[in-house]
Amino acid sequence: MSLTIEKLAAAVGGNLSGDGSIEIFRVANLETAQTGEISFFEKSEFAEAAQKTNATCLIVPENFDRQLPCSSIGVKNPKLAFAQIAELLHQRKRKIGISENALIAKSSKIGQQVFISAFASIGENSEIGDRTQIFEGAKIGENVKIGADCIIFPNVVVYENVSVGKNVMIHAGAIIGADGFGFVRGEEAYVKFPQIGTVVIEDDVEIGANSCVDRAAFGETRISKGTKIDNLVQIAHNVQIGERVVIAAQTGISGSTIIESDCVIGGQVGMGDHARVLSGAIIGSQAGVLPGKIVRAGVWWGTPIQPLDEYKRQNAHVKGIARLKEELKELKKQIETLKNETEPI
Amino acid sequence: MSLTIEKLAAAVGGNLSGDGSIEIFRVANLETAQTGEISFFEKSEFAEAAQKTNATCLIVPENFDRQLPCSSIGVKNPKLAFAQIAELLHQRKRKIGISENALIAKSSKIGQQVFISAFASIGENSEIGDRTQIFEGAKIGENVKIGADCIIFPNVVVYENVSVGKNVMIHAGAIIGADGFGFVRGEEAYVKFPQIGTVVIEDDVEIGANSCVDRAAFGETRISKGTKIDNLVQIAHNVQIGERVVIAAQTGISGSTIIESDCVIGGQVGMGDHARVLSGAIIGSQAGVLPGKIVRAGVWWGTPIQPLDEYKRQNAHVKGIARLKEELKELKKQIETLKNETEPI
Amino acid sequence: MSLTIEKLAAAVGGNLSGDGSIEIFRVANLETAQTGEISFFEKSEFAEAAQKTNATCLIVPENFDRQLPCSSIGVKNPKLAFAQIAELLHQRKRKIGISENALIAKSSKIGQQVFISAFASIGENSEIGDRTQIFEGAKIGENVKIGADCIIFPNVVVYENVSVGKNVMIHAGAIIGADGFGFVRGEEAYVKFPQIGTVVIEDDVEIGANSCVDRAAFGETRISKGTKIDNLVQIAHNVQIGERVVIAAQTGISGSTIIESDCVIGGQVGMGDHARVLSGAIIGSQAGVLPGKIVRAGVWWGTPIQPLDEYKRQNAHVKGIARLKEELKELKKQIETLKNETEPI
Repeated sequence: MSLTIEKLAAAVGGNLSGDGSIEIFRVANLETAQTGEISFFEKSEFAEAAQKTNATCLIVPENFDRQLPCSSIGVKNPKLAFAQIAELLHQRKRKIGISENALIAKSSKIGQQVFISAFASIGENSEIGDRTQIFEGAKIGENVKIGADCIIFPNVVVYENVSVGKNVMIHAGAIIGADGFGFVRGEEAYVKFPQIGTVVIEDDVEIGANSCVDRAAFGETRISKGTKIDNLVQIAHNVQIGERVVIAAQTGISGSTIIESDCVIGGQVGMGDHARVLSGAIIGSQAGVLPGKIVRAGVWWGTPIQPLDEYKRQNAHVKGIARLKEELKELKKQIETLKNETEPI
Repeated sequence: MSLTIEKLAAAVGGNLSGDGSIEIFRVANLETAQTGEISFFEKSEFAEAAQKTNATCLIVPENFDRQLPCSSIGVKNPKLAFAQIAELLHQRKRKIGISENALIAKSSKIGQQVFISAFASIGENSEIGDRTQIFEGAKIGENVKIGADCIIFPNVVVYENVSVGKNVMIHAGAIIGADGFGFVRGEEAYVKFPQIGTVVIEDDVEIGANSCVDRAAFGETRISKGTKIDNLVQIAHNVQIGERVVIAAQTGISGSTIIESDCVIGGQVGMGDHARVLSGAIIGSQAGVLPGKIVRAGVWWGTPIQPLDEYKRQNAHVKGIARLKEELKELKKQIETLKNETEPI
Repeated sequence: MSLTIEKLAAAVGGNLSGDGSIEIFRVANLETAQTGEISFFEKSEFAEAAQKTNATCLIVPENFDRQLPCSSIGVKNPKLAFAQIAELLHQRKRKIGISENALIAKSSKIGQQVFISAFASIGENSEIGDRTQIFEGAKIGENVKIGADCIIFPNVVVYENVSVGKNVMIHAGAIIGADGFGFVRGEEAYVKFPQIGTVVIEDDVEIGANSCVDRAAFGETRISKGTKIDNLVQIAHNVQIGERVVIAAQTGISGSTIIESDCVIGGQVGMGDHARVLSGAIIGSQAGVLPGKIVRAGVWWGTPIQPLDEYKRQNAHVKGIARLKEELKELKKQIETLKNETEPI
């Protein structure tokens, strides 16, 4: 796959400088880019490196005015344009065809130009959208709906009744729709609280490898349009995640918690149940959100979470305790001295 | 599946009020329950909502005496009765039959009315109990024993020599019996410490999706009767977990640690090795238990864990440091003043 | 499998005491070892237990001079010798043969004496080294190279273009080479930042069950020779891990972080991106390393990490705040008294 610089500039609405007729084959790092490759930079500190690049084209900030040894495309957001160009140049090879080693229930409905690989299975009454690719060993349960243009990587498991939108990518080993974790303590044993809801994953979602999204007790666990979830993340029953939320690896979200749209959640964050993270909140890695907590927009950190500024101030205070102690000691001495001086003779 | 209110009341030993002959088809939330459905409430704050319910039957606290628009079943523990009724009304569809696409070693012993689905494999000399269901792609190693009435979800892996009791549920992607993590540092490389023990999972245990239970170095890693483990949990070699223990998602338990019966462990808790959690301990999410620590009954929190009360008090103290500093400053001033006043003229 | 004590002593270069002609069949714990078994101890506190052992042979510290009821092998590092002997006595049963239920691309190159089990798949142009064993349901993508003498356990997934060295063990459910987690925020949606690099796993590495190693954005994610990684660990894109690094369960390492050789990382540790852990660092469980942080050799703890000593001192300080408060109160009183005394009458 290759495209001319001209076409790439047009695709991202950028200002072309230099020869637009040359073909570009690959995206690359600024430091390693070679002939036939395109790279980018955003900050002026990289201007010198840019002027020494071996790339055939660079994507640059639109106000960049220095001389470059190659063609360039000026845009407002170079990193974004770079990612968009990468999507054009490095389209994932699309596979088509249904393996004779796959097991597909007769009552299922399979779309056009679908790929279903060996050792994958599709349950009764399930639907697979056009151009969707289901890789080796993925297990799709009964009554599952998967939209068009999805990629379901090897050994993903989707339990029964789950609904997946269009253009969703689920990485290997992820488990969608296992029972939520709810039990009621009886006298001699725990009894499972019913977990008879489902999971809805909207369009353009990406879910990382070995992550888990549990089905709702009642109703649904929902991951909304354009949300991106990293590896080994746990999403419990009845969690509602808004649009364009980003969740880094190993974070866990307890039951019925709501994360509104456009939040960014770091890695290894833990959230208690029935919390609510309001739109625009950014939560730092390893933070802990208590059950029922409402988290407003802004940057948060620590366990239990605090605004980042407060967290830093408090950390500084803690580091200052040793000095406080010293000062207190000193004051004691001074008071003793004063006492002696004022003592009635 | 449906049952009359009368039969449901009898099943949970409750007091029937109103028409007992109506059929109930489903359990539901108090807010959303409709005709043909049964719901429950526990706390008096829900009494008003209950009086407006559209449900056909409600499970209520036994001393509840207000008028309801539907039949009711009075019990001591409504949530428990609700869960028990859900189990009656929503029995998981039981599958029977052995797929021609499964690979079953000839030396294995397969019980009556077993389900083994496509792309599942059963190793040499393994035993599968009556009515046990083994879903797509589950891999059962050699010399494994699985009791009756178990559900092994898709893509579970059980390594060789592991023993699983009756009525055990293992969710998709869980790995039982991988090598424990033990190495001895040699001069130029690590050498594996032997991991030749096994795993024993007792009756009525549930293990969540993508959780891992490692085999013992020697002897066994044991998960006792009725214990419930959430998703993405790590249980290291030689860990001993008692009966009716609940462990939430993403918690990790290091080697040889013992958790006695009837403990509740939150999510993302980390436990060092050779710790001992005594019966009745409740450990809050994200807590850290140091190696060798003995944790008594009660509620614990933080890293390293402290009794919850202490943890709260200490947190309050930390928040008070800024004020301490201010007070100290003020005292300094006062002392300076005093010094000046008492100075010999 | 059995070997004489004499041969075992020779294999570990130890000093034989007692009858060397007896056959040993198994390694075992000091407390439980029986006839035909060999055990070990390192510390003098176990000397009494050793003198009561039922083992047929004990591995002892080289300066140990007490009488034992069995043969013994004296060595400098008894635990290491024990592990080495365990490797001799308990060789994993090696399997050979290619299942007719495996799916192997015609363009792939399969070595000598390879084992490929049922429902495993090998993609186009991939290479599998001699004596490597690929268990049930493992999915090897296209253009993957796996060296000789590897064990790939059931349901492992290796994405395309990944390279695995010799004598590597990857436990069940681990995912190697899924997309790194990188997105660029556009006006209305996130766009995937290209993840077109690869993963290189060097010789003698072990990777735990359900762990994830992501492919690089560009270039490679690398895990160097002899490194051992536990279960449910997350290794992000472009991470570089040196030789003989040990990483315990549930730890997460963010993008482009470098861990130099001979580090030891506890469980549930979180590392931000672009951090650098220098050779010889030891990081305690649940610690948090901030992005960009350089961690020197030594023992570290806490979030953000501090040298262990500092962490302990600070913890003690925090516990002392209550007393500080008391002392401050007392000083206030004394100052009041002083004021009254010095007040002009």
